[in-house]
Amino acid sequence: MPPLGLVPARACAALLGQLLRPPCAACARPVRSHSQVAEAVLTSQVKPNQERSNFIIKTPKGTRDLSPQQMVVREKILDMVINCFKRHGAKRLDTPAFELKEMLTEKYGEDSLLIYDLKDQGGELLSLRYDLTVPFARYLAMNKLKKMKRYHVGKVWRRESPTIVQGRYREFCQCVSDMDFDIAGQFDPMIPDAECLKIICEILSGLQLGGFLIKVNDRRIIDGVFAACGVPENKFRAICSSIDKLDKMSWNDVRYEMVTKKSLAPEVADRIGEYIQRFGGVSLIEQLLQDPRLSQNKQVLEGLEDMKLLFEYLTLFGIVDKMSFDLSLARGLDYYTGVIYEAVLQTPSQTGEDFSSMGSVAAGGRYDGLVGMFNPTGQKVPCVGLSIGVERIFSVVEQRMKVSDEKVRTTETQVFVATPQKNFLQERLKLIAELWDAGIKAELLYKNNPKLLTQLHYCEHTGIPLVVIIGEQEMKEGVVKLRSVASREEVAIKREHLVAELQKRLSDS
Amino acid sequence: MPPLGLVPARACAALLGQLLRPPCAACARPVRSHSQVAEAVLTSQVKPNQERSNFIIKTPKGTRDLSPQQMVVREKILDMVINCFKRHGAKRLDTPAFELKEMLTEKYGEDSLLIYDLKDQGGELLSLRYDLTVPFARYLAMNKLKKMKRYHVGKVWRRESPTIVQGRYREFCQCVSDMDFDIAGQFDPMIPDAECLKIICEILSGLQLGGFLIKVNDRRIIDGVFAACGVPENKFRAICSSIDKLDKMSWNDVRYEMVTKKSLAPEVADRIGEYIQRFGGVSLIEQLLQDPRLSQNKQVLEGLEDMKLLFEYLTLFGIVDKMSFDLSLARGLDYYTGVIYEAVLQTPSQTGEDFSSMGSVAAGGRYDGLVGMFNPTGQKVPCVGLSIGVERIFSVVEQRMKVSDEKVRTTETQVFVATPQKNFLQERLKLIAELWDAGIKAELLYKNNPKLLTQLHYCEHTGIPLVVIIGEQEMKEGVVKLRSVASREEVAIKREHLVAELQKRLSDS
Repeated sequence: MPPLGLVPARACAALLGQLLRPPCAACARPVRSHSQVAEAVLTSQVKPNQERSNFIIKTPKGTRDLSPQQMVVREKILDMVINCFKRHGAKRLDTPAFELKEMLTEKYGEDSLLIYDLKDQGGELLSLRYDLTVPFARYLAMNKLKKMKRYHVGKVWRRESPTIVQGRYREFCQCVSDMDFDIAGQFDPMIPDAECLKIICEILSGLQLGGFLIKVNDRRIIDGVFAACGVPENKFRAICSSIDKLDKMSWNDVRYEMVTKKSLAPEVADRIGEYIQRFGGVSLIEQLLQDPRLSQNKQVLEGLEDMKLLFEYLTLFGIVDKMSFDLSLARGLDYYTGVIYEAVLQTPSQTGEDFSSMGSVAAGGRYDGLVGMFNPTGQKVPCVGLSIGVERIFSVVEQRMKVSDEKVRTTETQVFVATPQKNFLQERLKLIAELWDAGIKAELLYKNNPKLLTQLHYCEHTGIPLVVIIGEQEMKEGVVKLRSVASREEVAIKREHLVAELQKRLSDS
Repeated sequence: MPPLGLVPARACAALLGQLLRPPCAACARPVRSHSQVAEAVLTSQVKPNQERSNFIIKTPKGTRDLSPQQMVVREKILDMVINCFKRHGAKRLDTPAFELKEMLTEKYGEDSLLIYDLKDQGGELLSLRYDLTVPFARYLAMNKLKKMKRYHVGKVWRRESPTIVQGRYREFCQCVSDMDFDIAGQFDPMIPDAECLKIICEILSGLQLGGFLIKVNDRRIIDGVFAACGVPENKFRAICSSIDKLDKMSWNDVRYEMVTKKSLAPEVADRIGEYIQRFGGVSLIEQLLQDPRLSQNKQVLEGLEDMKLLFEYLTLFGIVDKMSFDLSLARGLDYYTGVIYEAVLQTPSQTGEDFSSMGSVAAGGRYDGLVGMFNPTGQKVPCVGLSIGVERIFSVVEQRMKVSDEKVRTTETQVFVATPQKNFLQERLKLIAELWDAGIKAELLYKNNPKLLTQLHYCEHTGIPLVVIIGEQEMKEGVVKLRSVASREEVAIKREHLVAELQKRLSDS
């Protein structure tokens, strides 16, 4: 509705005030719909105090807090992934959580609907970033960089598909952590692409998530198959989006969508069906190179030749057994132009859970045109990259820990400062400051006169391995007692040797 | 304008379409104002393609990318701070980037205006988090926790004050990194408070930012002074907000604001002025305890007695020389109830820059009532904490690095795999996969036949210390050459000993 946008809101307010002012009660809680978004902005005032006594304390729908236990697990996953990215020579980059809305348009195909906008407060129109790839491309174009190997760890935001709950239209924004590695630059074919697949293998092996499989395909092969089967060129991306649903829908349902919703001729759909249900390795590449219909198509041939080269490099990297050249893999996003891939976990036999139904845990591909979309001159910077699905991996690890009832320490405290006597707070404070200043991780209880048993229980409960005990007797003798929580052994140590002794013990353990 | 909000947008659209449709050109870029927010939502469509050729590639106003060079510096600061938080026994927590809007209301006083809202898309009303303290209090209340020592590293978002640029109303959202440490729980007085100040000292000393000073005050002393001077109780927070501006405004200007904008009697303002311009140490505490006006006030006495105890603990921690009991320190936020503090950097004599004018680099205080605001029963959980101003510290470090022209490595690559000959890609790929699998950080050029000189230049340019060279001669002899980039020395090493030799060299260095 463009004409409406051009009417100053103040005029609208005046008009409506005169002509339409309805009784307040009747309109106080209207059922909301997409066309009523504007209205909501005007009612977004703070609720009055009396309504707040029965409010529910919660996080926004689609989000959650991460407890210290969860953070320990997540940090370990993140460290392991970051370490792998560094092993492959990547630099770290950071971009803002939101971008100008226009930077994100025409990049994501049907997924564009899932971008979350900030409220317009009279300044720029902003959207929360939907992935880390488009901000990377924007960064390269903005800084006129032709080459860069970078990693990026950050949150991205996606709207969940709207649902109707109790007659009310509900929609929410989901926040996920993303970890991306990308290689930008003009290089010889398939070398960076092969490295991206190697990285996915190293990460999934390193995280010990069990068996996994990486599906590989190429947008040029998909498009070539479409062309060879008679799909009109203006329908390539739409049909690609349908194919992308094959992991969640049957071929029959996908075919139905293509024919009815996207008006594809049934015989064309059937021809596509013959190809996209095939998967395999190098022998499938060879077969398709001989296929009478496909071998006429220049794009397909390029894609297949590159796929052959890729498989050669994957063999050298020792990871070809993890790969499946899969013609059904399409990837939803518009910006891919070459090789695409997606890693799924295999069902572990121990637990009987079907992890593969969780969707991909890592994915990526080549996008040679995206940076050019930001360049006024359209100059291209070829890119290939991958994204690690932290949330899904985290769910798998968390689920497994629940099953095995594994305990994690949520603090790293090495030494506890305790006393068996009253009125020793001053000595404890002096002593602990000395430990902190020496870089030792130390705690005490924030009590003037805690019981010794309470203090020792605290150590056992939180897993602190060493206790320094100071009391009257120790003070007289110029020593402290050093107690091992596990063995309950205690030794006296000269006060002035304490820090050195602790450092020695901690570096040994 | 509540009545407007109650009119369905669609009705508004139809009406305006009939009555008001203006010539497009005249209204295409209306000057925006607060009352016109609704209109902007309606124009938030994607610009048509033809407009995009001359669009400017940029990040949103108030935000910036962080380059790999900047990320290295920032990561070092973050690591150092996190390490300190862990040294003091804190667990890590994470909360969503946005909260339900109602969770943030009535927590920030005048700063509430700076909260940034998400666009209402028919679901919950959401705001980007303004700090990490309120989400922590919400987490404690939601999980019914009475005790927790946690740290939190995350981004927070603040609207910048609106400004008029070229006749157009501009407003933007600023994203800053925040690092918070907080202690929740009922403990003996001033022990956790003293630890928070110790942590600030350890961090600012550890980052080697030069001299610093921590101003300390207590909300009970401020409120007691107000009461003793005759400020009406309902004006306490408003007057507090004025006092908070003393670091940017002179006393005369603050006094003017209090008298004219906040309708404070001039003689009351003058009485306040006598007190709040005083600062010092333990002797000032003693003086105020004797002050005839203040010593009548229970709140002030409590605050002063606790301040005395705090200074005793700070003496034991060996940091009392960094402290200044400063009656002008007020802190803007509503939720503080006890001790408050703010650290400022001192002007370094070398550069002549006035860093203290940058505002505080760390701040915090006690907020015993905040958790209770989220509890339906109002049950309180006393808390004290601190926040590190990462952006300001980062600016100082970055500025200093510019001055000293210090270079930083942006990658951690240890080994480069090179060849002097053509057609050695396969051998290079096999070899580098072996290094990666052994956990060695390694790179190669993504070229089939790179020149040796190009490869060696790459190492020198990016600071890679070791090069493994493989060629025909080496292949025949079953060796590789290992070259030190710095010394240019080369030794032959048996192919099968390479990984062990590299690991040895890397662990020695």
